[in-house]
Parts: sequence; C-alpha cells; structure tokens
Amino acid sequence: MAEILFGAPVAAAIRERSKTESDALRAAGIVPCLAVVRIGDRPDTASYAAGLEKGAPKSGVEIRRIELPETVPQEEAARTLDGLDRDPSVHGILLLSPLPKHLDADLLRNRIAPEKDADCASDLSLAGVFSKNGTGPAPATARAVMEILRFYGIPTEGRRAAVIGRSQVVGRPLAMLLLRGNATVTICHSRTPDLGAVLREADIVVAALGRPEAIGAAVLGEGQVIVDVGIHRKEDGHLCGDVDQAEAAPLARAITPVPGGVGAVTSAVLLRQVVESAARTH
Amino acid sequence: MAEILFGAPVAAAIRERSKTESDALRAAGIVPCLAVVRIGDRPDTASYAAGLEKGAPKSGVEIRRIELPETVPQEEAARTLDGLDRDPSVHGILLLSPLPKHLDADLLRNRIAPEKDADCASDLSLAGVFSKNGTGPAPATARAVMEILRFYGIPTEGRRAAVIGRSQVVGRPLAMLLLRGNATVTICHSRTPDLGAVLREADIVVAALGRPEAIGAAVLGEGQVIVDVGIHRKEDGHLCGDVDQAEAAPLARAITPVPGGVGAVTSAVLLRQVVESAARTH
Repeated sequence: MAEILFGAPVAAAIRERSKTESDALRAAGIVPCLAVVRIGDRPDTASYAAGLEKGAPKSGVEIRRIELPETVPQEEAARTLDGLDRDPSVHGILLLSPLPKHLDADLLRNRIAPEKDADCASDLSLAGVFSKNGTGPAPATARAVMEILRFYGIPTEGRRAAVIGRSQVVGRPLAMLLLRGNATVTICHSRTPDLGAVLREADIVVAALGRPEAIGAAVLGEGQVIVDVGIHRKEDGHLCGDVDQAEAAPLARAITPVPGGVGAVTSAVLLRQVVESAARTH
Repeated sequence: MAEILFGAPVAAAIRERSKTESDALRAAGIVPCLAVVRIGDRPDTASYAAGLEKGAPKSGVEIRRIELPETVPQEEAARTLDGLDRDPSVHGILLLSPLPKHLDADLLRNRIAPEKDADCASDLSLAGVFSKNGTGPAPATARAVMEILRFYGIPTEGRRAAVIGRSQVVGRPLAMLLLRGNATVTICHSRTPDLGAVLREADIVVAALGRPEAIGAAVLGEGQVIVDVGIHRKEDGHLCGDVDQAEAAPLARAITPVPGGVGAVTSAVLLRQVVESAARTH
C-alpha cells in the first residue's frame, strides 16, 4: 500500500521556515505584508481570504485586506493595484478571482509588479518560471507539488515525470519546475490518445487535468509517485481529486490524498513567497 | 530511406505568403519594416545582417540598419531601442547578439516592445509563447521547426514529440508550440539518463541540444520524423547538425538536412513575423 503524502506536515515546515525568516526581517524593521485584493462580494473569495488571514500569522505574514465594490470601474481597480505596486510596506499582492465580468482580468493581473506577484499571476512573472534560472515566485499550486516531493525526499533528478494537464496556472509551469529539478518531463492532455502508454513510463505522475477521478488503474503503472492536484465535490458531498484514489493507492508507491494533499500546501507556499519577496527587498 | 525535409521550399512558401500580405499592406500605405540593431563590429553579426538584408525584399520587408559603436553606453543603446519601440514606421526590432560585454543584454532585450519583438527576445514576448493561446511572435528557430512540419504535412495532433534540449530560445518554446499543436511533448536533456528509451517512443524527434552528431542510431527508433536544429562546423570544415545524419537517415521516415534544413527557414520566419506585426497595426 502506498505511502500517503499528507500536505499538512509539508505546509507546517514551510510555515516554520517563513516564520523564522520573517522574525529576522521584523528585527530589521520589515514586516512581510500581503495585500489581498477582493472585488465584489462572492462567498468563495471571502472564505479564501478568511483562510489566508487565519493562517498568515504562523508564516509571519501580515494581511492587508483591500475590498473594492462589485461595480468598481476598471481604472480604479488598476489604480489600486498600481498603488500597492509602489507601496514599500507591501511585499506581496494577491488579486482574488474570479473578477466581476465588466473587468479585464488579463489587464489587471498584468498590473501586479513581478517582484510582488505572490501567486505569479502576471505574464511577466510567469515568464520567470519558464526561464531557465528564474528566481521569482511560481504559481502556488505548481510550487506546492514541488515542495511535497522535496519534503518527502522524492528525487526528480533523472526521473521521468508525466504532467497531465497543460493549463497556464498548473500544468505548464509545473512542467517547467520539474524540468528545473532535472526531471525528463512529458506533458499530456485531453488530446493524448494513449494516456496509459505515457503514464506507465513515468516515475512521477501529476494529475492536473481538472476531471474528477479520471486517472485510475487503467492508465497507471506500479510503484509510481502520484500527485493529485484536482479537487472536486462529488454528488454525495465528498471531495475527490483527479485521481481515483481507491484504484491508484494499491498500485502506487506514494500518493497525495484529496483533501489534505496539495491543497493543504498552496496557501503556505503563497505566504512563503511573500516572505521571500520581503527578503529580496532587504 | 528517409524523405529529406529541405528547408528551401518551406522558406520560399513563407516568403511568398509574406510578400503577398506585404503588397496588400503597402497598398494601404504600410511598409513592413524591420530595424536591425547591431552594436559593435563583429563579422558574425555583420554577415547575419547582410543575409537578412539580401532576403528581405522577397518577403516584402524593408530593413533599417542601425549601427551603434562597440563602446556605446547602456543608456544610449536603451534609448535607441525605446525610439524604435515608439516609431510607427518600424514593425519589427532585432537586436543582434552577442552584445559587447559592458552592456546588460537582459535589460536591453527586455526593452523591445512585445508587439515588435521579431525574434521573441524579451521575457514578455516569451510569456506569450508559454501562454495557452499566444498570438505574438515566437523564437524564429522554434517556429521554423513547426513551419517545416506543417509544410510537409506532418501532423502533430495526438503524436508524441520528443524535444532534446531545454534552452530558452529553442527547446522550451518549441515544446510549447508542439503542445499548442496538440502533440504529447517530452522534454529531455543532458540529465536524462536513458535518452534512447525516451526518444524511441516518439513519432517526432527534435534535436536541439547543441552537440555535434550526438543523436544517432543508438538512441533513435525506426520510422520517425527527425528535425535537426543544430549546426556546427566539423574539423574537416564541413557543417553538421546535432544528429548523426548518416546513422539516422536510414532509420527515419523523414529528416531535415544540415545545412539546408531548419537554418534555411529561420530568417524567412523572422521576416514573416515582421509582416504579421505590421498587419496587426493595420
């Protein structure tokens, strides 16, 4: 039976590292601060912001909540972001999505200065991930996968990794991070005709296709490390991932659970990237 | 024996398309113009610029040569690029490299406006290639590979492609272009332990590792399409690619020669991207 790669201890270790570094920064007069910009009144963005706020002290990060009305004009939203870009007491900016429909999401996310782009939302920040030796932030979910592998001592160097899904927020940047870890990386997707043939060659399989329990015994090999990025609510109310855990766990060497796997690490990574930004200003 | 995928007819077709579109643009008063910025006095940049100038009329592109002295200060070089960014009669900018050592190449290439970045040199332009639906320019060599496959009717959709090499100018962006063509893409590199195991699974193999004749029968399969991006001068004075052509050709279904393959297509692509930029301003 597979080792279960729980996210909680990974997140705790990341938070501890952040807290230690934050303490040192605070001693030098720098308080790592994440501005969370929320536009409108959606309950999902509210609960996400509340979750971040609750966890932030453990990472030594101060949260500045900025709430703009649902009807805020584009220019005012842009001006708010510009102001945060310039504000030296702000080290990270997170623009919660989805945004109200009248706003140009692309334009606004690209307004975030790369050095403060806590979740790597802008094209320029993303370019850093695709570059060979980028040092800036990565999309939090993609980096969370790497942090889990590192924490559990799973090497990527010289290993074959298959990433299922080619989204701009997970699949593609994750492929680049695995590549930076010297894995041989295959990106598969909905147009891959024989997914099983591709996945069975891999030492590490990352499922980020966004389809509930789509990856099961039919396409997996034995003794693999399986990272499940998906999270979905089933009809019976339970959460599940992109991997059919009941089928995959008996085959795998190690597997991340859902919930309690990758999702448990992302906010710790996001806050970590705020501390790293603050450290770079120091 | 393999079909030889010569670059010349591909380049000719691209030039013809460019010329037709350029003629239409000229009728509307827009003359597609590429500013070629050369700093210092290297013979290699001179011969590259001369080659572009010679071929440009066939693509309907006007070349504006800008020559700066070897000792030009950083600020003046940057100002020159800024001026070209603003000049509405310039549709493409190419900064020839390598630059003199006192200049900050990263800073200067990022000074080129993405919409005029004929060879996709800036981080922001590159971000377009890594995005899911980018429409801007691509690094000319990477796009040249795609143009060759398209010209010879070699499908990428649903095929397995292996890219050897993970450079920022070829390997990584090419992987993204192949992905956009719905190939299942594997990126291998110097740290891939069993290259043969990876390459033999592929329908399309692109060698862009930058090592002369490093890819031969030992790592290739049968019936593959092989694209050779490398170009090197051997001790005997002959040119060769990254692929051992003598070993690969008998195995392959199709193969690009060196010279006369990918290299013969890149400048046509570069000029094509100038015409496309000009068309976008229209």
